[in-house]
This record gives sequence, C-alpha cells and structure tokens, in this order.
Amino acid sequence: MKGLLASWEALCAASGAMRFIDSNLRGVGQVMFQDNPLSGALFLAAIAWGSFAAGVSQVLFAGLLGVVAATLTAQWLRLDASSLRAGLYGFNGVLVGLALATFIAPGPLLWVYVVLGAAVSVVAMEATANVAKAWSMPALTFPFVLVTWLLLLATYGFAGLAGTALPAAGVVAPFESMAATRLDAGLFVQATLLSISQVFLKGSAVAALLFLAGLAVNSFAAAVAAIGGAILAVVTAHLLGAESDLITGGLLGFSPVLTAVALGTVFHQPSLRVAAYAALGTVFTVVAQAAFNVALTPLAIPALTGPFVLVTWIFLLPRLALDKTANDPSGR
Amino acid sequence: MKGLLASWEALCAASGAMRFIDSNLRGVGQVMFQDNPLSGALFLAAIAWGSFAAGVSQVLFAGLLGVVAATLTAQWLRLDASSLRAGLYGFNGVLVGLALATFIAPGPLLWVYVVLGAAVSVVAMEATANVAKAWSMPALTFPFVLVTWLLLLATYGFAGLAGTALPAAGVVAPFESMAATRLDAGLFVQATLLSISQVFLKGSAVAALLFLAGLAVNSFAAAVAAIGGAILAVVTAHLLGAESDLITGGLLGFSPVLTAVALGTVFHQPSLRVAAYAALGTVFTVVAQAAFNVALTPLAIPALTGPFVLVTWIFLLPRLALDKTANDPSGR
Amino acid sequence: MKGLLASWEALCAASGAMRFIDSNLRGVGQVMFQDNPLSGALFLAAIAWGSFAAGVSQVLFAGLLGVVAATLTAQWLRLDASSLRAGLYGFNGVLVGLALATFIAPGPLLWVYVVLGAAVSVVAMEATANVAKAWSMPALTFPFVLVTWLLLLATYGFAGLAGTALPAAGVVAPFESMAATRLDAGLFVQATLLSISQVFLKGSAVAALLFLAGLAVNSFAAAVAAIGGAILAVVTAHLLGAESDLITGGLLGFSPVLTAVALGTVFHQPSLRVAAYAALGTVFTVVAQAAFNVALTPLAIPALTGPFVLVTWIFLLPRLALDKTANDPSGR
Repeated sequence: MKGLLASWEALCAASGAMRFIDSNLRGVGQVMFQDNPLSGALFLAAIAWGSFAAGVSQVLFAGLLGVVAATLTAQWLRLDASSLRAGLYGFNGVLVGLALATFIAPGPLLWVYVVLGAAVSVVAMEATANVAKAWSMPALTFPFVLVTWLLLLATYGFAGLAGTALPAAGVVAPFESMAATRLDAGLFVQATLLSISQVFLKGSAVAALLFLAGLAVNSFAAAVAAIGGAILAVVTAHLLGAESDLITGGLLGFSPVLTAVALGTVFHQPSLRVAAYAALGTVFTVVAQAAFNVALTPLAIPALTGPFVLVTWIFLLPRLALDKTANDPSGR
Repeated sequence: MKGLLASWEALCAASGAMRFIDSNLRGVGQVMFQDNPLSGALFLAAIAWGSFAAGVSQVLFAGLLGVVAATLTAQWLRLDASSLRAGLYGFNGVLVGLALATFIAPGPLLWVYVVLGAAVSVVAMEATANVAKAWSMPALTFPFVLVTWLLLLATYGFAGLAGTALPAAGVVAPFESMAATRLDAGLFVQATLLSISQVFLKGSAVAALLFLAGLAVNSFAAAVAAIGGAILAVVTAHLLGAESDLITGGLLGFSPVLTAVALGTVFHQPSLRVAAYAALGTVFTVVAQAAFNVALTPLAIPALTGPFVLVTWIFLLPRLALDKTANDPSGR
Repeated sequence: MKGLLASWEALCAASGAMRFIDSNLRGVGQVMFQDNPLSGALFLAAIAWGSFAAGVSQVLFAGLLGVVAATLTAQWLRLDASSLRAGLYGFNGVLVGLALATFIAPGPLLWVYVVLGAAVSVVAMEATANVAKAWSMPALTFPFVLVTWLLLLATYGFAGLAGTALPAAGVVAPFESMAATRLDAGLFVQATLLSISQVFLKGSAVAALLFLAGLAVNSFAAAVAAIGGAILAVVTAHLLGAESDLITGGLLGFSPVLTAVALGTVFHQPSLRVAAYAALGTVFTVVAQAAFNVALTPLAIPALTGPFVLVTWIFLLPRLALDKTANDPSGR
C-alpha cells in the first residue's frame, strides 16, 4: 500500500494534472475524514456501484461535477493551497452534487444547480472554518448541509427544478408502529451496512463494503468505528421503536456513523474513555436524526448530515482531554 | 440563616456524600441563579408539592434523577470542580428531567431518556459555556432547551415514547379572543404566582410561594425581581390581548420572570437604570414567548425557556455599564 | 453637492437639534450603507412617495417614529457617539417601523409595537455588532430581521394586533407555473426597479428612481451595483422559473440588490474579480430568497432581508483579499 502511494505521490509531484486529480480524490475521501487518494478512489467506486445499480447514473456524474467545480472554485479564490491539496474544499462539493442529483429530477438546470451549489459550498466552507477556528472546531459537513438545504427548499419556488424525490410536506404526528418492529439477523446486517453507505446517500450493501475498504486502507480504526457506530445506531433506533423501514434503509444510522468515526478516531486518540464518550454521542445522534426528521416534516426536505454536525460540535466543543488522561493515568 | 449555612458547610467539608448532596441542591438552586443549597432545598419542596398536588409524582423523581445523572456525568468527565460544586452542571439536568416527565407518558424508556438527556445536557453545557465565554456570556438554560427540544421532537419518530402531554401540531392562524379577556384581582394574583412556578413547569400557587422563599433566602432582590417581572409580564400580555388561559396559567410569564431576575439582579447591580433596562427586556420576552409559541406550532413542541435565553443574551451582549454609570454620576 | 453638505455640517456643528436630525437622516441612509444625510433625505422622499401613492401614509410615519425611537434609545443607553452620529443605530429602527406598519393593521397598539421594536432593535444591534466584530463582520440588517420576525410572529398570539397583510400559513408544495412565464421589456424594467424599491418595502418605480438618486449622490458605484444586482436577480429568477408576480413585484430581487451593493461596493473595492464574486453571491441570494419564502410558509411571516444577511455574511466571512490581488497583479 505504502509503495503504491509513494509512486502516486511521485506522479503528482511531476504533473499538475495529476495533482488536480489527487486533490479531487482526497476531496471525496474527506467526506469520511480520510486524506488519502486511494480512499477517495474506493469511495468513488462505491458511489459508481450504488448509482448504476439503482439506475441513477446521473448521481455519480453530479458528484464528480460537484467535487471538480468545488476544487476549481477554491483555485479561483486562491484559497490555502495545502488545504486545497488535502481535499478540504472538495468534500462538501461532492456531497452537494450527490444530494441534488438524488432529490431533483434530471434536466439542464440540475447541472447549473450543481455547479452553483458546489461553488458556494467552497465559500461557505471558508466562512464556516473561519468562525469555527475561534474554538479550534472543524467545519464538518455544515457547508454542504446549509447550501443544499437552501437549494432544495428553493426548488419549491422554481418551476424549472422538480424535487421529485423530496419528501412530501406533512403535519407532525406521532409515529405508531403498525406491527411489532422485527429485526432478524439478515435485516440487522442490512441495516448496519446501509447505515454506512447512506453517508454518501447510497442504499447498497456492496457500496458499503467498498466504503469500508476505503476507510480501512487509510485508518483501520475508522472502519471499526464506522461498523461499531452503525451497529449502535441500529440497536438504539430499534429499542426506541423507530420505523423499521427507516432503520433497515440505513436512514437513521448514517449521521451516527459519522459521529462515531469523528469522535472515536479523528479528533481523539482511541481509548476506552473515548469509546464511551463517542458511544454517548452516537446514541444521541440517533435521537437528533429522528428530531431533525420531525422538525423538517413541514418543510419537506431531508435532514442530510445536519444531526451529525450538531451533535459532533456539541461533543467536541468541551475540548475534553479524554485521550490524554486515559493514556496517562497519573494525569488523573 | 448564616449559622445554618455554616453548619452545613462544615458537614460538607467532612463528607464526600454531603458534598455530593450539596452540589445537587445547588444545581436545583441554579435554575434561578441561586448558588445556595437552602434555595435548592426549598425549590425541591416546591417541585414536590406541585408534582404530588397534580398527581404526577414521577415528575419529581425525574427531576431528581436528572440532577443526579448530570452531576455524575460532570464528575465522570472531570469537569471543573468548583463549577460542579456550585451546581452549574446540574441545573440543566433537573430541568431536562422535569420537562421530559411532564410531557412524556411514564414508562421504562422515559427513565432511559431522562438519564440520556441529563448526561448530554452536561456536554452541551460545557460546549455552550466554551462558546459563550468568548463574549463573557453565561450559558443560561440553553443546554436544557436544546437537548429537550431534540428529545421531545424525536418522540414523534419513536413508538416507545409517547409525548401524550405535548401540544398537537397545528396551522399558524391569528388568535381571535372569543370573549373580552377578563382579569380580575383573583386571576391577576394567580397569573402572577403561576408565572413564577412555571419556571419549573409547575402550575401551583403554593409552589410559587416556596420558590419565592427559596429566592429570598439567598437574594431578596431576586425575589422582588421575580414578582415584578411576573406582574409586568401579566400586564403586558393582557394589554396586547393574549389568550386568558395562557396568562392565568402562567404560560406567558415564566420566561419573562427569568429575564427580570437575570437582567435586574444577577448580571447587573440593581438601580433605576438597570430596572428600566430589565423592564424593557422583560416586556420583549413576553413578545418572544408568544412568537416562539407560534413558531413551534407546526412542530408540536413547547417553547420551554427558549425566549428567556434569546432575549437575555441579546440584552447582555451589549455589555452596557448600566450600573456603574448609575452609581457614579461623574461617569456620565 | 460638496458645498451643500459643507453648509449642512456647519449647521449641525452649531445646533444639537440639527445633529439629531442629521443622525436620523444618516440612519435612513444606512439602510443601504450610505452615511450621508442627503441620501437619507432622498430615501425618505421615496418612502413618502411610495406610502402616499399606495394610500398607506401610516407606513411613512411608522418609519419616522422607528428611526427617532431608535436614535433616542441609543442616546439613553449612551452607546458609541460616532456610530450613533453615523446612523448605525437608526437603520434597523426605520426598517422595523416600515415593516410593522406594512404588515399590521393601524391602531394604537401598532405605535406601541413600533416604539418597542425600534428600541429593542438598538439593543439587538449592539449585541450583533459585539458578536460579529470577533470576525470583523458588520451586523447588516440582522437586528431588524430578528426583532421584526419575533414581533410579527407574536401578532398571531395577540388579539390586539392584526397582521392583516401577513401571508397566510400554507403547506409547502411545489410551485407549478400556470402559464409560461412571460417577461417582456416593460415588465423587465418594472421588475428591476421594484427590486430596488422593495429594499424599503415599497412597490413603486418612482420611489426606485429616488432611491437610486439617494445612492448616486453618495456613491455612484453603489447605484450601478443596485441596478446590476436587480437585473441579475430578475434574470436568474426568470431562468429558474420563479412565479411571475413575485419577479415583477420585486419580491425576489430586493435581498440580491443589497448583496450586490454590499459585496460589490461597500466591503470590497470594485474590480472585475470583485464583480464576479458579488455576482455569485447575488445569484445565490435569489436562491436563498426563494428558500426562505418556502421555509417561512408554515410560519406565515415574510422573509424580510434575512436572505441578504445570511448570504452576505457567508461571502464576507472568508475575508478574501479579492480587491488587493486584483489591483496588484504581483500579489498573485
């Protein structure tokens, strides 16, 4: 693996075009915090599989257009070169592209919308990062969530864009389980895998395995945290009595998966105390996901990764030295 | 009173268990800004009276579980010991417990929810405090409001939790008074007292007197501000034509009461100028309370103390030296 | 023009009453960022024309009451004298007055509401400025938007205030154009002009010309940016298929006009790169305006200039040195 990456680095050092490709692949990888072009390539393969299998190839192309438009915008605005190279201006763009093409019917204005959204996501990324750095906080996927919510809400005002896959507006009402929520072994595995693939808005077990491979090549701990977070989310949602279709479709698990990876492996060194803290955050992200789903019911838009952003910020802001004290018992 | 507190301090100095009890009592007291175990004990007596009188004893126990779970979480996270001892990690927990048990039907998952909410309220408290301290702002009850809103919204997605006492979702429409809003002397006194007891989600005049006693033992000015704020809120709401039931139930007055205590006695030295400023904030909190009630109508959740938090932050952020200039005319 | 202003300055230097009038005129001018009493006077003339032509003279008087109440509040709170003199505590007050009288039926409580709202807008201005200055950001019209939203929402809870001109609450649903959206030359000019006059909640071409004159006497670039922003907004809204009535009424263009003036002339030196950046922000403000309109549908309140505030903050926060690099090619 290391030899492969070294050859790749050499190629990038020699060619501006290769560096551009590298920046974009890292941008895809950064959706799950992996600054690694191989992770990005595997994630792209997963997106491709999920898109073609579901017969929505335009979603893949919108994702690609999104990340490229975002990277070009960052170059045009002459933003920080090392952040750009690490893919930090690209990951919101790829998500904007995937989300817009998932919820809006194809058509010429969709592509305009993707480019506009990806470009603004870069501005929003820099804005969010500038605010968040006052507390040493990461921007997470807040720029993606903010820009995409605005673009999706606006489709209800524009005849040129049809949000055909958006949820219908409804009145908030208690969910009553029609039948006992069953969750046998097969559904449990499906729910766990789809919780991972839905991070990229894909409902595919094969794609989930490719996403896990993309995590593992850069960080084995991240892959473990993703699986652990998914399992914890599925169990929590099941015990609280959430709707079976949402659980087995991975739709209550993708935000918790991101919380588990972020709190458990990216912003803390793994340890028992960190795992307990990340587990608390992961469980609460399930609650936040359900809450966002309810709160957005009158607005007829999806929660995206908003619950992950909110809960992870809440859990990072205390800036607890969980790992240090765990590694150094004398530090208690 | 001072002798009693001195003996209590001596007991606490000698015993970890007593210190734990003391921290929790102060946590209850801090709901109304009183760092005093006797205030906390009187507040608890009021909560007990209000809960038993209304036949909802589980609300008292949920409040107790909330404050204890919050204090234990703060210990586990090794948060600042002096803040913990002053009850600053407990007051959101007791409110989370009271609110969840008030709006959700009893059952095993309610208790899980109280512990989860109280634990997360501590993390949210530390997060809010870290953000707010950049402007020397207090966290107020924002952690309680945020965490409880998410937990209550999520009940609509979970069959295991029934928000039986939550408001039904409705469409925003103008309120037309059915009849002339009457407010005779008896109703006026009731409205004033219940505006105070509703700070703890209790609609009881006896509880209100116990809350006032709890304030007075630590700060006579705070008790006066609470009564003054309640009267001002009731008069304002009446003049603007608010619904009689909301006024006499204290449901438009509890946030203004907190604003009056905070702006008039906690964060400024009392003076005429301070009283005028606090009165402006108190009147606007009545407007904000009505506004939040309307804005949350489609979401079918209560405003809690959100209006108090918003208005008090707006009025504290200018960091006006109202008291100094008032005490020192040459400072004009 | 300079002689006229010099005589005016001399008058102000000699008389406290003239200084008070000057501060209020600048307050009106600052709605569109112009610290110039003549701009304010021309804006007032436009407001007067628009109000009388539409038969709603109370709107003019509410605007005047709003700016005066705000200026007096700022004096009472002893806020920064040079900011007060530059009109920075007045522009939110005039907008509060205009908006409340536009949406609420006349009556004694309307005037109480205007004074309350204008006074609180000053506190909210100082609060917003204190938060925003941590990132060297301007407060923009956020205080107006926040305070007016709360006051308008609250009318649904108060029988004493009838929001007769507020939008009715509705369910979010896709907009389907009934017929092909036509936009001939006459409608195009109307849409462009009304996009400018709606900054002050006026739908009048004559008022728009007076507003442009008020801009031009202080900043020719600002007048050009206003026209350019209005045209870009109308074209964007038309291409995306927005409702014709909204476009031709200027209701999708007033926030973009403010974004264009702010990003293109106030906070950057005009240049080609700045123009491109401001154009991106202006186009996205059209999307944000449509999004806010949809998001506020269940709440039955108007978006006001919220979209302008959000997008302009997002585009200013990166603090890009667009102009410097453009003026100094070696700085690339």
